[in-house]
Amino acid sequence: MNGADSLLATLEHNGVTTCFANPGTSEMHFVAALDGTPGVRGVLGLFEGAVTGAADGYARMTDQPAATLLHLGPGLANGLSNLHNALRAHSPVVNVIGDHASYHRALDAPLTSDVEGTARPFSHWVRTSIDEQALAHDVADAITVARRGQVASLILPADAAWNELSTPAASPTALPAPLPVVDGAVAEATARALLDAGSRGAILLGGRTPRADALAAAGRIAQATGATVFTGTFAPRVERGAGRFAAQKLPYAVDEAQQVLSQFDTLVLVGAKPPVAFFAYPTKRSTLATPGTHMIDLTPETPRADLPLQAVLDSLPQAARTKAAEAKPVDLDLPQRPTGTITPEKLGVFLAGAIPENAIVVDESITSGRTFPEATAASRPHDWFNPTGGSIGWALPVATGAAIACPDRTVIALESDGSGLYMPQTLWTQAREGVRVVTLILANRKYQILRHEMKNVGVEMVGDTAATLLDLERPVVDWVSVSRGFGVPAESVETIEELSAAYERALAADGPALIEVVL
Amino acid sequence: MNGADSLLATLEHNGVTTCFANPGTSEMHFVAALDGTPGVRGVLGLFEGAVTGAADGYARMTDQPAATLLHLGPGLANGLSNLHNALRAHSPVVNVIGDHASYHRALDAPLTSDVEGTARPFSHWVRTSIDEQALAHDVADAITVARRGQVASLILPADAAWNELSTPAASPTALPAPLPVVDGAVAEATARALLDAGSRGAILLGGRTPRADALAAAGRIAQATGATVFTGTFAPRVERGAGRFAAQKLPYAVDEAQQVLSQFDTLVLVGAKPPVAFFAYPTKRSTLATPGTHMIDLTPETPRADLPLQAVLDSLPQAARTKAAEAKPVDLDLPQRPTGTITPEKLGVFLAGAIPENAIVVDESITSGRTFPEATAASRPHDWFNPTGGSIGWALPVATGAAIACPDRTVIALESDGSGLYMPQTLWTQAREGVRVVTLILANRKYQILRHEMKNVGVEMVGDTAATLLDLERPVVDWVSVSRGFGVPAESVETIEELSAAYERALAADGPALIEVVL
Repeated sequence: MNGADSLLATLEHNGVTTCFANPGTSEMHFVAALDGTPGVRGVLGLFEGAVTGAADGYARMTDQPAATLLHLGPGLANGLSNLHNALRAHSPVVNVIGDHASYHRALDAPLTSDVEGTARPFSHWVRTSIDEQALAHDVADAITVARRGQVASLILPADAAWNELSTPAASPTALPAPLPVVDGAVAEATARALLDAGSRGAILLGGRTPRADALAAAGRIAQATGATVFTGTFAPRVERGAGRFAAQKLPYAVDEAQQVLSQFDTLVLVGAKPPVAFFAYPTKRSTLATPGTHMIDLTPETPRADLPLQAVLDSLPQAARTKAAEAKPVDLDLPQRPTGTITPEKLGVFLAGAIPENAIVVDESITSGRTFPEATAASRPHDWFNPTGGSIGWALPVATGAAIACPDRTVIALESDGSGLYMPQTLWTQAREGVRVVTLILANRKYQILRHEMKNVGVEMVGDTAATLLDLERPVVDWVSVSRGFGVPAESVETIEELSAAYERALAADGPALIEVVL
Repeated sequence: MNGADSLLATLEHNGVTTCFANPGTSEMHFVAALDGTPGVRGVLGLFEGAVTGAADGYARMTDQPAATLLHLGPGLANGLSNLHNALRAHSPVVNVIGDHASYHRALDAPLTSDVEGTARPFSHWVRTSIDEQALAHDVADAITVARRGQVASLILPADAAWNELSTPAASPTALPAPLPVVDGAVAEATARALLDAGSRGAILLGGRTPRADALAAAGRIAQATGATVFTGTFAPRVERGAGRFAAQKLPYAVDEAQQVLSQFDTLVLVGAKPPVAFFAYPTKRSTLATPGTHMIDLTPETPRADLPLQAVLDSLPQAARTKAAEAKPVDLDLPQRPTGTITPEKLGVFLAGAIPENAIVVDESITSGRTFPEATAASRPHDWFNPTGGSIGWALPVATGAAIACPDRTVIALESDGSGLYMPQTLWTQAREGVRVVTLILANRKYQILRHEMKNVGVEMVGDTAATLLDLERPVVDWVSVSRGFGVPAESVETIEELSAAYERALAADGPALIEVVL
């Protein structure tokens, strides 16, 4: 048993069954060890961003880490932007980053770099294994850390991977994620504050908290107190649609968010920090809640926010609890399918009726999708993924990982064309793995958000030179050609009727499909 | 005049005329300022690796920095792997990395990260501008640093970009790159050692040193002393072919390199460190020169190694100098074009005859290209780019930047299919800019080098699971479709005759072209 075998045995022992990988020479023993570890599935990505993004998507659905396998500093570097998103999504991830053999580092060979320094800004935890004997314990520690909703980066020197263990050890067992501490005094204070605030109270569920049970508890509290329930703009996964309890998504645009929050003087933060603007603008305030708002931090980020919210519910007086019990989940309400040329608004209505039961919707629609959350609030029950860290190009990788985690569910990726151009080779992994991902490319052929942002930052005139950096024409990308090149069947549509037909074909397919929606 | 205007004026004042960019909201004032700075051309990349790689290619040809424009920590992160290569190529690069407004950082908005920490492992110099007034001096410092063959990363807070300067200042002038110090004693010792060593002497030109003048001086020294001239395996740019002085490329494979170097007991290092293996292997030595070899460090890395080499030449005794004068450059020797099915060997012969006068050959052919350097030694004069840092996927971006630096020259990119799949969207920038780049995709449909490396690290049996991580089939990438999707005309060829015809069409085209060469 060499170090790589020991590492993989420990992953398998702890239920880490998927390894998204883009290996190189220094990872060859790890790759060879996969042959002897049938419980860990290797999934090849052609680019490291596809690998780390897939791990994020996998974690959003399972609350458990997948492993990644990355090749030295530059391989890790290619995966960092999606690790940033994973970190902001509180996604459990265990990175295994191969490095040179320990004795080779000092020679400063061309691929040598500061791997720990590269990992640190995008990891909660970084460790270089000192030798083959340490690996099993190190990776168990990494899994324990990851299960807390963190990114753990374990650096694997090539000689630690290939050396034989002097004492083959049993695989250590990683710790489970802790449940949130329920503080009775905080629960009581929250209940009292919301009762006092009435309709000027709001509950904001951020991070991984907007799961069905937590939303149900929040919905009942809202019914009893008159509060409004919000989900964070950047909540990684919201369980929503018919049968779930309604919540509004806090808007992205600063003015709109400030306007919405100005209606409240009491804000209960559930796995959320005081909300702030995504970017600063010369003449806008960077905080979103009205100054002076009473904020209560109910619980830190957790997928089990139902526990502290239930405690708030239990702290309400009897009459309020009776009222709470009258709260009703959302009724299914599917709109009529629109017709004709596609607009972003019509696309929202189309989606509302088209999301399949239990689908996972991965939303990187950016400007084209501003109406989607409201339009789809009463669709069939589904999970909705939001952007988390703001690094774009995540939807294709994250959709791929979610589909691998949940092979029985359909994944709908809503991808703006500008964003999809960051990591288009992810489509190849979708084709190879035969995942059920339907990608809609929302093709407005420009960085539309930057056109808005030019105005927001006070630039009135966009000249020709600046304009060339904001448009995606000259040439127009032919998404059908790109997608087919990577092995994913594709069509381009310009009307809702064409979209409907293409969408039905895509849902009926065995594997992935892509539809370019020309806007 | 705001900070962004001042920054751009300073770039223009110092001859930094090209900015490869992938901007976001925090860079909008910089983008707007481009409209008022006609001397700086903005070139859009759809992915940051395309941006930083293009800056590397631009610098390899000009020895001057281009600027890059990147968006916060994740945007920088996407560009790091090609910055690693640029750093190892000693390419001058000035990165401008937008960050949140200074007062916004503390709010920890979703896109906040440690930008300085992210830049540091892949930069020689990192600075965050403190305010708009400091920007001009900061970017002038960055240019000074870059001209030394370094990567300079300047972080630009959004408010420093948008604030008006209280005192509009003249643009400071950056310092030129210093010429190498020529040490007479070292030159004399080198001359003496090489005379003593005779045919057991060798001269290794690493880094940016293998330019025509330096190779001519080294070739004359070799003629006088009996030494052999090598260029480093990872020299970023070698001026070679007919009319230049011959040099052998030090082989990549460890055993082969050790075998070659065992013939020498004296090794003169010109801009090179003692050569080491790219990777460590369980049973191989990591250093390449025979232990006990007498090494002389003639000069540090510089594109002007002709100066210290000329000093060595001048230190030779009269008789040796007379002999040196007899040295002859390479005669043009174009082989007959081969025929039939394409093999890597035949492709090398094809290239030997097909490289146009003054072409720039960007070589990321990896296993398929092992015979290319020797085969093309007597081709028409050209520049040959080698991998430098070992981070793969660099050839398309670097070729694009080289073509933008040298619009009158043809660029031939030799790209292995696995490598080309890292940053294929670079093709779009080629199409938009209409660059004269002919890309040959060498499609063996596997990570062939990793199959070799499995054996090298001692893995005898590759099982089915491991094999899935090493092959690029299921599905086969259709490069013609991918390339056309990004706007670059493409063909696929399987015989030398088809290749010849496609190649002639590509050379005759106004803009870029891609040929998938099925191996």
